[in-house]
Formats: sequence, C-alpha cells, structure tokens
Amino acid sequence: MEDTICAISTPGGVGGIAVIRVSGPQAIEITDRIWKGKPLGDSPSHKAHLGEIGDWTRNEAVDQCVATVFRAPKSFTGEDTVEISVHGSRWIQREALALLLKAGCRMAEAGEFTRRAVMNGRMDLAQAEGVADVIASTSRAAHRIAMSQMKGSISRKLTELREQLLELSVLLELELDFSEEDVEFADRSRLLATALSIKGELQHLYGSFRKGSAIKEGIPVAIVGATNAGKSSLLNALLDYDRAIVSDIHGTTRDTIEETMEIGDYMFRFIDTAGLRDTSDPIEQIGIQRSHKAIEQARIIIALIDISSLNIEGLSAESIIASLPEEIRKETSVESSVIIAFNKCDLVDTDTMRRLESLSNQLLSHSRCIYNVLSISVENGTGIDRIRETLTEIASENCDNAHDSIIITNLRQAEALRQSIASITPLIQGLESGLETDLVAQHLRETLSNLASITGEIPSTEVLNTIFSNFCIGK
Amino acid sequence: MEDTICAISTPGGVGGIAVIRVSGPQAIEITDRIWKGKPLGDSPSHKAHLGEIGDWTRNEAVDQCVATVFRAPKSFTGEDTVEISVHGSRWIQREALALLLKAGCRMAEAGEFTRRAVMNGRMDLAQAEGVADVIASTSRAAHRIAMSQMKGSISRKLTELREQLLELSVLLELELDFSEEDVEFADRSRLLATALSIKGELQHLYGSFRKGSAIKEGIPVAIVGATNAGKSSLLNALLDYDRAIVSDIHGTTRDTIEETMEIGDYMFRFIDTAGLRDTSDPIEQIGIQRSHKAIEQARIIIALIDISSLNIEGLSAESIIASLPEEIRKETSVESSVIIAFNKCDLVDTDTMRRLESLSNQLLSHSRCIYNVLSISVENGTGIDRIRETLTEIASENCDNAHDSIIITNLRQAEALRQSIASITPLIQGLESGLETDLVAQHLRETLSNLASITGEIPSTEVLNTIFSNFCIGK
Repeated sequence: MEDTICAISTPGGVGGIAVIRVSGPQAIEITDRIWKGKPLGDSPSHKAHLGEIGDWTRNEAVDQCVATVFRAPKSFTGEDTVEISVHGSRWIQREALALLLKAGCRMAEAGEFTRRAVMNGRMDLAQAEGVADVIASTSRAAHRIAMSQMKGSISRKLTELREQLLELSVLLELELDFSEEDVEFADRSRLLATALSIKGELQHLYGSFRKGSAIKEGIPVAIVGATNAGKSSLLNALLDYDRAIVSDIHGTTRDTIEETMEIGDYMFRFIDTAGLRDTSDPIEQIGIQRSHKAIEQARIIIALIDISSLNIEGLSAESIIASLPEEIRKETSVESSVIIAFNKCDLVDTDTMRRLESLSNQLLSHSRCIYNVLSISVENGTGIDRIRETLTEIASENCDNAHDSIIITNLRQAEALRQSIASITPLIQGLESGLETDLVAQHLRETLSNLASITGEIPSTEVLNTIFSNFCIGK
Repeated sequence: MEDTICAISTPGGVGGIAVIRVSGPQAIEITDRIWKGKPLGDSPSHKAHLGEIGDWTRNEAVDQCVATVFRAPKSFTGEDTVEISVHGSRWIQREALALLLKAGCRMAEAGEFTRRAVMNGRMDLAQAEGVADVIASTSRAAHRIAMSQMKGSISRKLTELREQLLELSVLLELELDFSEEDVEFADRSRLLATALSIKGELQHLYGSFRKGSAIKEGIPVAIVGATNAGKSSLLNALLDYDRAIVSDIHGTTRDTIEETMEIGDYMFRFIDTAGLRDTSDPIEQIGIQRSHKAIEQARIIIALIDISSLNIEGLSAESIIASLPEEIRKETSVESSVIIAFNKCDLVDTDTMRRLESLSNQLLSHSRCIYNVLSISVENGTGIDRIRETLTEIASENCDNAHDSIIITNLRQAEALRQSIASITPLIQGLESGLETDLVAQHLRETLSNLASITGEIPSTEVLNTIFSNFCIGK
C-alpha cells in the first residue's frame, strides 16, 4: 500500500485511446515527472488536463494526452489517482507504462486497484466481487444482479443480520462477565426466535445461489427426447448456426453438446442430449446416462416429440406423459419447467394438428411442471421464436423478484453462507436444549465470524489473494 | 456537424474500463438524459463527475461511471464533448451505446471525431493523418515521425512555402489587373529564384517519402546469397522462431518470405529470398526473379556466404565482390547498405578465420556501400546479435536527421507533393522563357492548390472520405 502502482485499465489492443491508471501515495508526483503541461501537483481533484508525457531527460515526447487527477479519498481506490488518456497504439501504451515504471511506479497486480479500494474502506469484499461480476456480465439479468451487489445490497443485508446477532452476542458476553452472579441478561426465547429468523434468511440467501449461478453462467436448458426427434436440429435452429452434427441416422448425437446463447435479458446454456432409447452401443449408453444427468441439472427441459412417427389416434395426454423421461414424470422435480414441443408438424395433416391442440390443453392442465406445449417444425423454422419467447418467459418468472430481492451468484459467498448456516444450527440447538452460556456464546461467535467473511470484515490474506487474482489487470 | 455522435474509443473487448466519447452540439444535454448525478449541464469544462448512467424511464441503472465534460472549443473535436468511463464489460459497452443512441446520439463513423477536429479548425489534414499514424505506430522511429506530423511540423513547413508563393502570386495578380498599362510589379528573376528554391524544398520533402515509408512500414532488408548459404536459418534466427522451412536441400526456399520485426527503435521487414543459381525448376526461376526485385527494393542487403563451401586460399576481396548479385556490384545503387556475412564459421579452422579478418578489411575499403563484414554461425547463434546491432546502426544513420527534419510517410501527401513539383516545373520554365503573366499566374495558382491539398485548405469531400475511412471508430 506504500507503493504507487500503474496499469493499462482499458482492454488490450489498438484503439482510439487507452487509459493508464496510476494510484498510490506518489501517483501525482510520479506522473508529474513524465508530464509536460500545467503541474498536476497544483491541480484540484476531478480535473482533466491536456499535456504531454515523455522522457524529458532525452527531450522525447511519447504522446499528447489528457491526465485527470483524483485526490484521496475521493477516488476509486481511495488513494491519489491519475488517469492518463493516451492515443491507443500498442507502442504508446507500452512506452507510457515504461515511463511510469522508470519514474517510480510498480506494475499493478491483477485486481490490485479494487483490492486497494477494499483496504481503504471504499467498498467491502462482497462489493469488490460485484465489480468483477459487473465486468464479466454477459446478459441484462446477470448484470442487474452484479450491479446490485456492487452497490452493496448483499453487504447491507448481511450487516443487518450481523447487527441482530451482535446485539444478542453483547448480552450473552455480558452474562458471561457476570457469570458468577448467575444473572440472565439475554432472554433465551427472544434469542432463539432471532436465531431462527436469521437462519431462515441465511437459508433463503443460500437457496438463491442455484438461481443466481444459473443467471450468471447461463440458465441450463436440456433438450431431450427419443432418437431422431430433431433435438440437434432444434439446438442449431436456436443458436442460428450449425453447432451439432445432424443426420437421419438414429443416435447421431452420442455425447452431450453444450452451447450458451443470450436471448432477451438472459443467458441460456443449451444442452443437446443423446436420444433416449435402449442401445447396445457402449458410447451411446454413456451418452444416455449423461442425458439423464443433464435433465436433473436443467432448470428448463424441452421435451421434443416427433409427431410424424406416432399414431395420433392412439395418443392421449397420459401416453405422452408416460413417454417422457422419468425425471420429468416425477412431480418432485418441480424446480424445472418443461416445454413439450411436437416437432415435424410440417409432415402431418390439419386433422392431426387439431387433435394436437386439444392434447396440448390436456397436457397443460395435467401437470404443473409443464409450462407450455407447442407445435413446431424445426425443418421449416416454424415455432422456434415461440420457444425463444417461452424460454425468456420462464426465466423472467423464475427471476422476477431478482429486481428487488438479493441473489447470490458467487461460490465463495455461497460457501460462507453454508458455513454460517452450519454454525447457527448448533447455536439454535444449544438454545433449545438450554446449553451453558459460554458454549452458546462460542457458537454465536462462530456464526458471526462466518458471516463477516462474506463482506471481508475479517479477511485472511489467502482469501484476498484468491479473490483478486481472478480480476483483470488494471481494475 | 449538427448531429451529436458517440462511439467507444477504447480498444474492443473486455477490460477494467472502457471510454465512450460523445461529441456535438447536444453532447452534454444528451448525456444528462441518461445521467444520474450532479447535472453535467452545470459542469465547467475539464471536470470529472462520479455518477450513474441508465434508462431512468425504467429506473434501471446500467453502470456507475465517471463522466468528464469538455466544453467547446477546448476539446479534441472543438465541440462540446463528454467522455464516459464505464466498467469494461461487453454488455455495459453495448448498453451504454444503446442508451446514448436512444437519447438522441448517432453512431460515429470511422475517424469522425478527428474529421470534426479538422472541420472545426483544431488541426489540419496533415495533422489528422499524423493522429492516425500515431495510433498505428509500431516502432519508436515511426512514432517519432508521426508525433512530429501530428504536432504540425509538415503543416508549418508547407505554410511557409505557400506564403512565399502567395506573396509572388499577389504581385502577379496585381500585374494582371493593370495589364493594359504594361507594368511589371513582380521582379521576374526574384520570382524565378523563389520558385527554384521552393521546387528544391518540395523535391527534398518528396525524396524523404522512400525513407519515411520504410520507417513506417518496416525497413526492407533482403537476405541474399547462393542456395544453402543459410538464408532461411538466418531469418529464423533473427525472428527467433521457425518462420521459414529449412533443409539441407539446395533450393528449399523458392518464393520470397517476408516478416517484420522490431529491433531497437526500428521496424525491419526481412525478405528471405530464393538462393541465386542457374536452375531449370520453373518455380525456382520465378523465385529468383523475385529475389532480384527484393534486392532492388531493399534498403539493407545481407549477403550471406557459406564460407565452409569455398576454398579460402583462392578467395580475394575482388572474387567475393564478383560473387555478389550484380545489383550490389553496381555502385549506382548506393542507397542500399550491404552487410556481408560469412556463415558457417563453426566449420572452419582458426587459420581461415584469420584470413577472413583481413578479407573483411579489404572488402570494407573496397566499396562504400559495404557497411560491415561479419563472420557468423547461424547454427551456433554466433554473430546474430552483431547483425541486429549493425541493422539498427544503419537504420539510425539513415534516419538520424529524422529527429529534426521533416519526413513524409503518407502516400497521399507524397502524391500531392509530386503534383506540386509537376506544376511548379512549367511555372519555372514559363518564367525562364518569358511566358505571359496570365499563363505564369495560372501555373502558380495550380501549384498553390496542389500544396494546399496536403494540409486540406481546399479539401474535397472525396479526399476527406478516403482519409477518415481508414481511421478506427471512436477516434
């Protein structure tokens, strides 16, 4: 933190301009050494200056540029900072960095600017992770969650919970100090109620991780069905390019194929699976096992049925349900939404189409996990847009409270929440079973410490290193 | 120019931050529409503000960012400008642009910011081309020339020449006005002397183009010699990776291979040529023709001689010179510097090495186009650094006046200079032969117009479009 660091903060490559960030106690002084123009040392905060940078010992200008001064603590890092806007040639970017290093800066490590912002109290760890997520966001929904985290929504929620726990902790600790007098400051039943309520909130937060992770990494959509139902063709149609090999041969797709795509505000992760059938092909058998796994992990399942290969007269809602993979049939897996798509509708007559319509209504009322039933033709492109619309509808219904409520997307935070739940559970048991005050207090301290690790009130160097090494240089 | 334009000015891709530039009469007003924070409309020039951008009709924030206001005429474009520093995710960059477009901006075309700077008199065309060259520079020498051009060195020189011509022009036009009175305001001999001096300066500038173009595109270095002398191995050693296929078979390299590399302050363009020999292979014959062409165009020639294949006793400076390609032997091509490199020195004894040393001295004194004679071993890596040093020595001697004098690197400018020379020549002839005043004045006007086109005093839309379409978007 004594060092002054510098790095290129804009994306790598050539562009109109590039921005070099200098931060640290000597940021302004060091920049002035390579600066020709109005001295930056005299500049107020938040002021931009036109000038030149160069090696003035050799009287060699490197570039005309704009330097903006941000004075501590009103900067991103909380330290004195200069942002130098240079022309974006590779040569200038390299030379400008070289000038700064020669003048006394050191190259910033990945995430070091944000790390300094945390160390200087400009933001906490959860917010810093929000910054990284904001930069990595690839869809509106993921961006919205990251922004909310960056602005401190998780931090505020956890602070609220910690304050409740701290209040109880103070009473318990007081009790311990006067333990010989056998007083009981803390009302045990109130303590229990608070702990239960906090545990509920922690579980709710922890439970949002599956949803958050889906939004961040892409909502998993499994495309399932019998062989030759047109699953790979549907994948290609949704992605709008030939991702998967398609043929008339049953069992063409043997391994699962994954591809992400942004539709509307969401990122979807499509998983094309091997067609489900009894087979002696050992590779296909493994593929079918993977299909079942994909179905389990998916949040949305598109069940594709080749309507041209079935006898429409003999079809009923029950027989269709019976033909679905057993994971879907089990009403327990209600977390997934199922879209049933009758494919190859271009090959059947209008009578059949009419029959399908009534079947669709029966299916919809049959099971609440069936979200929609569509008649499509992947071959003709009919109904593909309806599938896209249905996907975003499901995603937005699943995440419609994402706008207000807090969603966890970060594995480290989820893990800390899991540990907090693990330590609050014996606390509750202790309170219920009338455990001694010092043991209860012990569990309480543990819970507090687990919660604190999320926002980094008590961060270890190791945790800090892990978090910030995932940042890009210059942030 | 009535429009307000916007574009991402930083390189494409993901980074810590990205900068979006907004310029035009409504730049501040439009940015304020997507801005939450202290109103930018109240901001003084050159001030940075922390705030948020977003779609406030939907109450949706897109990013926390810093917006810096530059008020006309004290901005790059000469118009009101706002530079918005956002987090560098693809999603934010895209959404921020979308917000600005919705709020009333239009996407900037390639080079449009610089074009506006020209239209608003912030710089002339030659300087604008300097900006493009600054961004494209890949070596210190190229950068130095581009910076000097951006800062107006060429413009100042041309203005000086044009002022001299204008002075004469005024006198000639006056004479025309009073033509019936048969007066002669302009001293013809003084006019002639000035025209000759200007022509000399124009030719000098035009002559710098070959040098300037070499510095900008890479100084061409031809590697020549008999088959199997080790030319491709030398290329690979200089580049430090296996660019060319190398084998013991004579005639392995049939076509010329080009590769650029920065050494010291310069960019070199190495051309590995087919070995010169009589051959019946038609492809090799074409390759050998190309070798001769490469030698003609090269500014530096490395003539490689496999010393292990020669009888050292029978060697003399004369016989070595005689073995060189005829283009080198002709003293006319003095513009090229030749490095003779005795290769495979690891295969000969110390007596031979001693003999080579005395041969080297004889060769150096024999021809002034032979810059250096080196004994090397590409196989062992011996002497490769000496070749690199010699290359930068030659480049810096060739360009050592580059620091002060003006060098043309731009084809359009070179072409305009050529036309200026073409139109000043009949002017001079007319003055010498006592041509009538109105015809002399006609030639003078033409010369002035040609000169003016370099800095764009009289630019056509077509010329403007050609120049700025080569810029990147956002500059």
